[in-house]
Amino acid sequence: MEFFGSGGGDSLALIVQKYGGTSVADTERIKAVAKRVVSTASEGNKVVVVVSAMAGETDKLIGFANKVSENPDEREMDLLLSSGERITSALTAMAIQSLGYGSKSFTGRQVGIKTDSSHTKAMIESIEAVRLEKALAEGIIPVVAGFQGINEFSDVTTLGRGGSDTTAVAIAAALKADLCEIYTDVEGVYTTDPRIVKEARKLEKISFDEMLEMASLGAKVLHNRSVEFAKKYKVPLVVRSSFNNAPGTLVTMEDKEMEQIEISGVAADKNQVRVTILGVPDRPGIAASVFRALADANIVIDMIVQNISTETKATDISFTVSKADSKKALDVTKKASEQLNARGVTMNDSVSKVSIVGVGMQSHVGVAAKMFDVLSKAGINIMMISTSEIKISCVIDIAHTETAVRTLHGAFGLAEG
Amino acid sequence: MEFFGSGGGDSLALIVQKYGGTSVADTERIKAVAKRVVSTASEGNKVVVVVSAMAGETDKLIGFANKVSENPDEREMDLLLSSGERITSALTAMAIQSLGYGSKSFTGRQVGIKTDSSHTKAMIESIEAVRLEKALAEGIIPVVAGFQGINEFSDVTTLGRGGSDTTAVAIAAALKADLCEIYTDVEGVYTTDPRIVKEARKLEKISFDEMLEMASLGAKVLHNRSVEFAKKYKVPLVVRSSFNNAPGTLVTMEDKEMEQIEISGVAADKNQVRVTILGVPDRPGIAASVFRALADANIVIDMIVQNISTETKATDISFTVSKADSKKALDVTKKASEQLNARGVTMNDSVSKVSIVGVGMQSHVGVAAKMFDVLSKAGINIMMISTSEIKISCVIDIAHTETAVRTLHGAFGLAEG
Repeated sequence: MEFFGSGGGDSLALIVQKYGGTSVADTERIKAVAKRVVSTASEGNKVVVVVSAMAGETDKLIGFANKVSENPDEREMDLLLSSGERITSALTAMAIQSLGYGSKSFTGRQVGIKTDSSHTKAMIESIEAVRLEKALAEGIIPVVAGFQGINEFSDVTTLGRGGSDTTAVAIAAALKADLCEIYTDVEGVYTTDPRIVKEARKLEKISFDEMLEMASLGAKVLHNRSVEFAKKYKVPLVVRSSFNNAPGTLVTMEDKEMEQIEISGVAADKNQVRVTILGVPDRPGIAASVFRALADANIVIDMIVQNISTETKATDISFTVSKADSKKALDVTKKASEQLNARGVTMNDSVSKVSIVGVGMQSHVGVAAKMFDVLSKAGINIMMISTSEIKISCVIDIAHTETAVRTLHGAFGLAEG
Repeated sequence: MEFFGSGGGDSLALIVQKYGGTSVADTERIKAVAKRVVSTASEGNKVVVVVSAMAGETDKLIGFANKVSENPDEREMDLLLSSGERITSALTAMAIQSLGYGSKSFTGRQVGIKTDSSHTKAMIESIEAVRLEKALAEGIIPVVAGFQGINEFSDVTTLGRGGSDTTAVAIAAALKADLCEIYTDVEGVYTTDPRIVKEARKLEKISFDEMLEMASLGAKVLHNRSVEFAKKYKVPLVVRSSFNNAPGTLVTMEDKEMEQIEISGVAADKNQVRVTILGVPDRPGIAASVFRALADANIVIDMIVQNISTETKATDISFTVSKADSKKALDVTKKASEQLNARGVTMNDSVSKVSIVGVGMQSHVGVAAKMFDVLSKAGINIMMISTSEIKISCVIDIAHTETAVRTLHGAFGLAEG
């Protein structure tokens, strides 16, 4: 991505504030957002606001599209859906003005967000933030319609899921902002899902990498694309609630403090199934042929485990895919396994993935052993294991998910902080 | 206005079809519009579609604006309101595509509609219809979001009341279209209001000038601005219903046929009050000073009549203004009359204006006399008279409005056609 902003340059803090759909759900909420923006500005900060569509608006428009067409064109979909954020940006600018502050709305095009032409999931190619810089220099609070840009043909594009977060981070990067605040309906990032473990604790700070792992494990606070972006351009993010003044969670570069903690969070994902190919002849290239077939069918694989059976000279290959892809994955795998003369294919859709995440596990020994031990003592059988530098995931029986999360949360002392 | 289109060039008819809010009120209506568009295209015509916001959408957005601000900024209002037409244009393009025809939505900006910066009531300065011509050449049916353009700062502007009609006529002019069809929820232009006179007859044809008079007299089928535009660029208009296949009314240049008919229509306007300044000293410049004061207060005057009283060397001046301006007009007039040493000011808000319109009255003698005679025989007293080349208006007691319209409609043989 290219930035054409000059950025920074004076001593005031420049803060990008992004407000999600529930934060701007109705005119009362928009007025509350305006107050918060003005309060930040009145403390001497420069503020750029990025807004999502009012909660429910995007779904309403998608509903319309599905009624007029069985297969709505993606270019048209983008023009349709970009309207939601435009409406919110105009209303928010009006609300800020009515509090006595200068404010102007800007569309994605007007703040120079150029994307590729992948309608409904476009990637930002460049930002020419000239109008934003001009507005800021004039003491105006810009309110940007999130989620959208234009392509080389001057057609409107949208950035896909989490698109307004991406807009906010990209603008923060282009303007070299000091901070990008993501306002939502939760207070921050938690050690685990508070609905499962009531002792779950809000994290003060988390590294970009931990956040990426947490997000991919089903903690839906931030979309991964915006976190990757923030990491790449070193934009510190704060996730906080627009419904109160709690300080939220800072997502930032890894630091010493984070490394002193064994793990930062426990996550569970019930949206997976396990597929196993039994008795695959143990020859080179076998696994590759299976996963090539799955990739060709556009199926995203999460975990892969291969058990070598020394007795039979055959191997079992297990992998997990999302529930939505399970039927297609099973079909493709069955076909591939027949060609390989495998013994058969089984699917287990009563599984879940429980994971612990933390940059601290790089400097602490025995974290994995401790996890397996804790689960074993709780009588929970581990079906698959997968590890990365800062994450250990175990596939277990779905019935034990909550017990596993609660036990791990306690055993790693997450409630105490 | 400048046009940068090459226009015309082949033998197929090029038709601009504009669909108003009730014609695209919901997804079922939008699908019906798509069918009509495709039916026109399947007959070998090239079609450009212009759409309004779905009925109710604009009011909903205005309601939002009034909730977040007591005095919504006009620039923000324009971004807000322009969303409605964009939504309809995308949905209509999708609906046309689902019938197997190529279609693409275009915003005001994308079809090069450049306006001045008078937000909420911008005037079109130029149209650069390159993308429209390209789409048409590729056999694609363009669907343009009406009511909007952009100004020199690349900000969105809207064209005010009747703005989508203006968009349609401007595009028809730029493309040198053969016809501009305005689809609405009435079947055309009537000899008078069918709610008052059940014999009211739909006109096959009416001149631009007659249409302008009818519109200014309260026949709300077409906004005057779009008719003036159509007249200036000689774009034939057809007003017709999107709810059936009735042929509608052609609005076009004056022709011989029209001149053979005494009058084309009768209109009534109950939205006026009469203000009279009594006993104004009969000196030059007196009337000017009163109407200068009213103009300074931004009050639009409709009819003005001055009765010279030879006995008293003083005069009475009467004028009419809209009910909405009546209080302000009375205040301004009272102040002015005190400075002039006039005898006093009276206001009558129980009046209406009944008018007959027709290019034929230029070549028929005695039309005015016949009108006064008809009203007199019906026992209706005439308070004020005003005439133009193709219109005669009388102010009467509001209680007699319906009787006057019905009697005039009958006397001039309008029911027979």
